[in-house]
Amino acid sequence: MEFLHMDIEKVPLDVPKTQRETYLKNYMEIIRESGKLMLFAGDQKVEHLNDDFYGEGVPEDDADPEHLFRTASEAKIGVFATQLGLIARYGMDYRSVPYLVKLNSKTNLVKTSQADPFSNLWYDVDKVVRFKENSGLNILGVGYTIYLGSESEAEMLLQAAQVVYDAHQHGMVSVLWIYPRGTAVKDEKDPHLIAGATGAGACLGTDFVQVNYPEKEGANSAEIFKEAIKAAGRTKVVCAGGASDEVDDFLRKLHDQLHISGAMGSATRRNIHQKPLDEAIRMCNAIYAMTIEDATIEKSLKIYNGEQEG
Amino acid sequence: MEFLHMDIEKVPLDVPKTQRETYLKNYMEIIRESGKLMLFAGDQKVEHLNDDFYGEGVPEDDADPEHLFRTASEAKIGVFATQLGLIARYGMDYRSVPYLVKLNSKTNLVKTSQADPFSNLWYDVDKVVRFKENSGLNILGVGYTIYLGSESEAEMLLQAAQVVYDAHQHGMVSVLWIYPRGTAVKDEKDPHLIAGATGAGACLGTDFVQVNYPEKEGANSAEIFKEAIKAAGRTKVVCAGGASDEVDDFLRKLHDQLHISGAMGSATRRNIHQKPLDEAIRMCNAIYAMTIEDATIEKSLKIYNGEQEG
Amino acid sequence: MEFLHMDIEKVPLDVPKTQRETYLKNYMEIIRESGKLMLFAGDQKVEHLNDDFYGEGVPEDDADPEHLFRTASEAKIGVFATQLGLIARYGMDYRSVPYLVKLNSKTNLVKTSQADPFSNLWYDVDKVVRFKENSGLNILGVGYTIYLGSESEAEMLLQAAQVVYDAHQHGMVSVLWIYPRGTAVKDEKDPHLIAGATGAGACLGTDFVQVNYPEKEGANSAEIFKEAIKAAGRTKVVCAGGASDEVDDFLRKLHDQLHISGAMGSATRRNIHQKPLDEAIRMCNAIYAMTIEDATIEKSLKIYNGEQEG
Amino acid sequence: MEFLHMDIEKVPLDVPKTQRETYLKNYMEIIRESGKLMLFAGDQKVEHLNDDFYGEGVPEDDADPEHLFRTASEAKIGVFATQLGLIARYGMDYRSVPYLVKLNSKTNLVKTSQADPFSNLWYDVDKVVRFKENSGLNILGVGYTIYLGSESEAEMLLQAAQVVYDAHQHGMVSVLWIYPRGTAVKDEKDPHLIAGATGAGACLGTDFVQVNYPEKEGANSAEIFKEAIKAAGRTKVVCAGGASDEVDDFLRKLHDQLHISGAMGSATRRNIHQKPLDEAIRMCNAIYAMTIEDATIEKSLKIYNGEQEG
Amino acid sequence: MEFLHMDIEKVPLDVPKTQRETYLKNYMEIIRESGKLMLFAGDQKVEHLNDDFYGEGVPEDDADPEHLFRTASEAKIGVFATQLGLIARYGMDYRSVPYLVKLNSKTNLVKTSQADPFSNLWYDVDKVVRFKENSGLNILGVGYTIYLGSESEAEMLLQAAQVVYDAHQHGMVSVLWIYPRGTAVKDEKDPHLIAGATGAGACLGTDFVQVNYPEKEGANSAEIFKEAIKAAGRTKVVCAGGASDEVDDFLRKLHDQLHISGAMGSATRRNIHQKPLDEAIRMCNAIYAMTIEDATIEKSLKIYNGEQEG
Repeated sequence: MEFLHMDIEKVPLDVPKTQRETYLKNYMEIIRESGKLMLFAGDQKVEHLNDDFYGEGVPEDDADPEHLFRTASEAKIGVFATQLGLIARYGMDYRSVPYLVKLNSKTNLVKTSQADPFSNLWYDVDKVVRFKENSGLNILGVGYTIYLGSESEAEMLLQAAQVVYDAHQHGMVSVLWIYPRGTAVKDEKDPHLIAGATGAGACLGTDFVQVNYPEKEGANSAEIFKEAIKAAGRTKVVCAGGASDEVDDFLRKLHDQLHISGAMGSATRRNIHQKPLDEAIRMCNAIYAMTIEDATIEKSLKIYNGEQEG
Repeated sequence: MEFLHMDIEKVPLDVPKTQRETYLKNYMEIIRESGKLMLFAGDQKVEHLNDDFYGEGVPEDDADPEHLFRTASEAKIGVFATQLGLIARYGMDYRSVPYLVKLNSKTNLVKTSQADPFSNLWYDVDKVVRFKENSGLNILGVGYTIYLGSESEAEMLLQAAQVVYDAHQHGMVSVLWIYPRGTAVKDEKDPHLIAGATGAGACLGTDFVQVNYPEKEGANSAEIFKEAIKAAGRTKVVCAGGASDEVDDFLRKLHDQLHISGAMGSATRRNIHQKPLDEAIRMCNAIYAMTIEDATIEKSLKIYNGEQEG
Repeated sequence: MEFLHMDIEKVPLDVPKTQRETYLKNYMEIIRESGKLMLFAGDQKVEHLNDDFYGEGVPEDDADPEHLFRTASEAKIGVFATQLGLIARYGMDYRSVPYLVKLNSKTNLVKTSQADPFSNLWYDVDKVVRFKENSGLNILGVGYTIYLGSESEAEMLLQAAQVVYDAHQHGMVSVLWIYPRGTAVKDEKDPHLIAGATGAGACLGTDFVQVNYPEKEGANSAEIFKEAIKAAGRTKVVCAGGASDEVDDFLRKLHDQLHISGAMGSATRRNIHQKPLDEAIRMCNAIYAMTIEDATIEKSLKIYNGEQEG
Repeated sequence: MEFLHMDIEKVPLDVPKTQRETYLKNYMEIIRESGKLMLFAGDQKVEHLNDDFYGEGVPEDDADPEHLFRTASEAKIGVFATQLGLIARYGMDYRSVPYLVKLNSKTNLVKTSQADPFSNLWYDVDKVVRFKENSGLNILGVGYTIYLGSESEAEMLLQAAQVVYDAHQHGMVSVLWIYPRGTAVKDEKDPHLIAGATGAGACLGTDFVQVNYPEKEGANSAEIFKEAIKAAGRTKVVCAGGASDEVDDFLRKLHDQLHISGAMGSATRRNIHQKPLDEAIRMCNAIYAMTIEDATIEKSLKIYNGEQEG
Repeated sequence: MEFLHMDIEKVPLDVPKTQRETYLKNYMEIIRESGKLMLFAGDQKVEHLNDDFYGEGVPEDDADPEHLFRTASEAKIGVFATQLGLIARYGMDYRSVPYLVKLNSKTNLVKTSQADPFSNLWYDVDKVVRFKENSGLNILGVGYTIYLGSESEAEMLLQAAQVVYDAHQHGMVSVLWIYPRGTAVKDEKDPHLIAGATGAGACLGTDFVQVNYPEKEGANSAEIFKEAIKAAGRTKVVCAGGASDEVDDFLRKLHDQLHISGAMGSATRRNIHQKPLDEAIRMCNAIYAMTIEDATIEKSLKIYNGEQEG
C-alpha cells in the first residue's frame, strides 16, 4: 500500500481527535504536500561544537549561527531543525522559516571509549508548545536522537517514546534520529542493524526516522538500504547526508536513496551549511528539488550551479 | 478450586467497584470466554531489532510490520500484543483486532556479559488510557517484561507493580513476561526458578504471567512445569513458544503445556509471524483452536495444513 | 513506664487528630488488645522465590499460595502480611483475615557478594489506602524492609520514613523489618548491631520493628536481646522466627524472647506455612496463645499437638 | 556590625512577609533571646546506632531513648534536635521541650573507605509543617547534615538548599551540620577547610551552621577557629562538642569557642546524654548557663557539680 | 548586524508577550543601557571554599562575606552575582545592589582526577521568582555553570536549558558560565573548544555566556578569542578575569577582549574582592568605566588609582 500523502483517516491514533486537523496541517506543510521530507539540520553547534563551523575548508559565513537562519530563510526547504535557544533568538527575524525543535543534544567531548553516549532531553514537549504559542513561530514538529545499543539506551527510549506521544497530543510531527552507537555496537553502518533502528523507530510511533546510509563491503548501499525502508513500515525513513561529499556524488547518492532504496526524504547538515550563503542556498534548492519536486540529478545539479532556478 | 471463568465476585480487588464491569468485559474478551489466553506477540522489532523479520529462512512478508497486523486481523486470536507506536499507526486499518499494549522494550545489543538487562517503561498506564479513548481501539490490556535477577530488578519490580495496579484501576487486564536473566542467573530454564518467576508474578497481582518452558536434563518439561503453574496460584500461566520449532512439535509441546502442565494459555511470536501471511493465519488458527477451543493435536494440525477450517 | 496498651493519648503525633480514632482501632485490633503483635508473614514468594514453598521437606499444601490464606483465615492470628497483589486476588474469599500490606520485596538471586541489597518500594501508601477503600478489606497496616548497612541504605531509609509517616497520616499501623546486610556488615546477628537496628526503627517512628534474634558465642540470646528491646524505646520489637526449627525449640525460644528479653510479639514465616494446613493452623494457634494470651510453653505445645483448643 | 539579637528588619529575605513574625518568634525562642544557640542533639541512634548508648562507660539510663527526652525536658536547653519519629512517639509526654527536627540521617556501617558518605533527606519540610500542626508541638526549626567533599556532595547541597529555603518559607529556623568527609578529604579538622564549610553554610542561607572544632599541630584551636566564624558572616557558627571529654576540659573549650573564637553557640551530644539523668541535667544546665547566660567557667562547673542552681 | 541595544523586537521569543516589558527593563538595567555586561561575581565561597578569602596576600576585609556586598553597593557595577542564601541574609542592608542569583555551586574538594565535575541546581527558577517577590530586591537574572565534557554534562545541559527557559518565562536575564572540564578535556583554554562552549551557550538560548580567555602557544589571545565571539552569534560573550593579575595587565587584557576580540562584557571575581574595600571599589569602578563607559586603559587606571572619579 502506498502511503505518500497523509489523509485524515491515516493520522496516527495517538493524535487526539481535536488535534487531527492541526496535525494534518503540520504534516502536509512539513512534506510540502509531496509525501517526502526535506530536512535541513542545524543542531551541530552542540553535537560537534565548533568543529563544523570554523576551520580549514569551512567558509567564513558558517562561523556565525545566523548563517543557518539566512540559508533556511532564503532557500527552499521542508523544515529547519535546530535547538530552541537559537530559534528563540533569531526567530523574530526569520518568521517565514518552518521550524522543528531538536529536543536533545550532547557534545562530542566524551568519546564512546570513555562512556557510552547519552543525549538528554532538554525540554519536554509542553515547553515547546508554550514556546510556539508565545513566539507565534511556525513550529511544525520536534526531534530527538537515540543512540541504540548505548548503555543509556533505556533512558533514551523512554524519552523518545514520551516525545513522540506528547508531540502527537499537540498535533505536532516527530522526527527521531536513531544511531546505533556504544561499546556494544561493532559496525554502525551495518544494513541489518540500521533496519533494526528504523523498525525501532516504527515501534516508537515516530512520523520520520533518520538513519545513516548503510555500508557493507561488496554491497550496493542503495540496495541494502531497502531492508531498513521496509522495516520501518509506515514510518518514513530519511537518510543522513553524512560527512561532506562532493556535490554531484551527494546528489547521486540522494537520488539512489529516494529512487532505489525508497527513502522518503533527506536530512542534510554540513553539505548545506559548510558553503558560503549563496552556494548554501543553491545547494538547499537542489536538494529540495530532488526530494520534493522529483527533479533529476541533472536538473538538481543545474540548480546547484545556478544554471537554473531552484 | 477451579478458576476458569472469571465472574464478578472474583475480579481482583485492586479493580475499583466502578471499573469491575469493564474489567470483566475486557477479561472475558481476552480469554474469548474460554478461561485461556491465546496471545500473539509482535513486539520483537525492538527486542530483537530486525533479526526475526529479515534474513535466511524468514519469508518476505515478515519484513513489513504490517504483516503482524494483517495476521492479527485475519486470523483468530485472543489478543495481539505490540508497542503503542505501531498500534497508533496501523490501528485505523485494523480496528477489529483486540490489542494489548506492550509497555516496555529494550534492544538486544547490550549483552548480559556487558551489563544486566533493564527494560524501561515507555508510557505509564494513564497514557494508554488516553490513547484508548482517543483512538477508539479495542485495547483490552497492557504488558510489561521483568528480568528477574538482573541488577536492575528493583526498578523493574516497581514499574511492574505500578503497571498492574494502574491497569486494574482502569479495568484493563495485565500480562507480565518474567524471565530470569542477568549475571546472577546461571540457568534460565531451571524449573524451580521459573516457578519462582510465576510466584513473583502472583505477588505482583498480574492476571497472566508468561514464562519460558522449563528444561532440565532427564526431566519431562511438561511435568516439571507443573511447579510453576502451582506457584502462580490464581494468576494464570502462559507459556512462551521460544525459538522457531517444526509446527507439529510446536503444537505437541503446547498441547502438553495445556493438558499436562496446566498452563492457561499460549504466547507465540516467531512461530506465527515467520511465515507467509496465509500460513501465518492458519498457524494462528491452529493455536487458537488448541488453546481456546480445546482442539486435539490432530485437529489443530489439520487447521494449520488448511485441511479444516480454523 | 509500661506501655502495653495504647490509649488515645499515646497515639503517635504524626497521626493527624482526625485519624487518631482510626489508628487506635487498627492498633488495638492488630495487637488483639493484648499489647503484643502476632504476625504471620507470607511474603517470601518474592524474597525466596519458590525455595520455601516446594521441595524436599515442604508439604504439598505449601506449593499453592492459597495455603497462606487458608491458614490465616482458619487460625488465630494477629495479622497476615503479604504483597498487595496476592491480597487483591484472594481477599474476596478471605474477608475475615486482618491484613498488613508488605510494600517492598526483592528476590534472592543477586547475592551480596555481587551487589549490596536494595528492596524497592512497589507502591506508595496512597495506593494502599485506595486499595483498602476499593476492596473493603480489613487492612490494618503496612510493612517495609530495610537492609541497614547496604550501599543502598540511603534510599531505603528515605522510603521507610515515608512509609511510616504516610501510614500514620491515614491511621494505619507500620511494621519495619530491619536487617543489617551488605558488604559492610560482618556479623548480621551481632546483638549490638541488632540493637542499632531497633533504635533506628524507633527514630523512623515505626510502631513495630522486626529483627533477627541475636547470636553471640558464649552468650544467651534471650539475655543479649534485651539491649535491642531497650534501644527501641516505645517502638515495639518483634522477633523473627528464622529458619525452620523443631516446634518445641521454636516455642521455647519464643517464650524466652517474650518473657526474658521483653519482645512484644512474634513474626513467623516458614515455621507456620511449611506444614500441612491442619498442622499450620495448630502452629498458628500455639504461637497466638503464647504471644497474645500469655500461654505457657506446655499449653502452647498442647495446642500445637491438638491436645487442647487454640 | 554586631548582629546578636535578631530584629524584624534582619529576618532573612527568603522568609515571606507573612511569616516574618513567626520566624522572629521561633528565632528568639531558639536563642532564648540571648543571641546564642544551645543545641542538645540526640540524633545518633541512627548515625552511631547503639554505640553511643550502650556499652562500657555508658550509664544504663542512656540505653532508653526516653533518657534524651527526660533530659531535654528537665534541663535548661535552647533546643533539642532529633528525628521526627522519636518526637512523634515521645512528644505527647514532653510538650514543654522546644524541638528541632533532624531531617537526614545515615548509619556508620558503610565506611568512607568503601563509599563516600551520603545522608538522605527523610522528609521534606512540608511534612514537618504538617507534623507541627497535627502534633501541636513546639517545633522551632529543622536540621540537615552535609558531608562536604563527598562524591555525593551535589545531592546533599541541593537537599540542604531546599531545606533552608523551605524552612524559611514557613517561618522556621535552620541548622546545617557541615562536615568535610570523603575520599577527597585528607584532614577533616583543617581550620581552613572548616572555614570553607561555614562559608558554604552562609551561601546556603542557613541561620546556624555547626562544624567540628579545628585542630592543627602547634596551633591554638580557639584562635584558628576565628577564620571559620569570620567566613560565616551573618550565619552563626555553633561548635560540636566532639568525643566525650572530661567536664572541666569540655567547659573550658566551650568557653574558648564562645569568648575567644566568637562562636555563637554550642551543640552537644554525648557529653550530655552519656551521663545518668541527674548528671545529664546538671551538665545541660552548665552548658546553658555558659552559652546563654554568659556564665564563667567556674560558675558553670558549680552548676554541673550541683553546688549552684542552673 | 550590530545588536548592542536590545529593543522590544529583539526580545528572545521564549519570553512570553506579557513578560517582554519586564525582560527589556531587566536587560537594559543589567547592561546599564550600554549593550555590555559588567558582572561582579561573588560565588566562590562554595566553588573555592575559603581559599580566595583568607590567607597570604588576601586582605583582611575579604574574610567577611559582607565585603562583597559593601563593594557591590558602593562601587559602580552592572550586576552582582552570588548565591541566594547570601542575598537573603545581606540584601536588606544592600537594597540598591542589582542582583543575579547563581543557581548552582560545587566545592573544589573532589578533583577531576577522582570524578568528573557536576554542579547541581540548588533551586529552580520558581523559587527565585518567589524570593524576588518576597524580598522586594532588584533581582535581574539568574546564572548557572556547565562543565562541558564532564561525564555529568547531560544533567547540566538539561538543568541549564531549564534555567534559561524558565528565567525568560519570568522576564529575567540569564548568564551561563561554560567551562570545558573533565577527563575528556585535555586543554581547557583551547580557543576552538572555547568557541564550542560559546556556541553551545547560544543553542541553550542564554543572554550571556561567560568563558575563560583562550590561550594557545604562539597565538595572541585577543585574536583567537574572536572565534568564540563569532560562534556565540547573538548570545553575548563575557570573559572571565581568571587568576589574580596585576591591575594594569588586567585592564589591558580586558581592553583587548572588548576592543579586539569583541567581547560584550566582563566578569570579575578575585581581581575585585581580593582588595581592601576602598581599593576594591576603585577597581570595580575602573572595570565599569572600561566595560560600560568605553573608557581607555589610561582613564581606567586613573580611576583605579583614585586619580579620577569612577
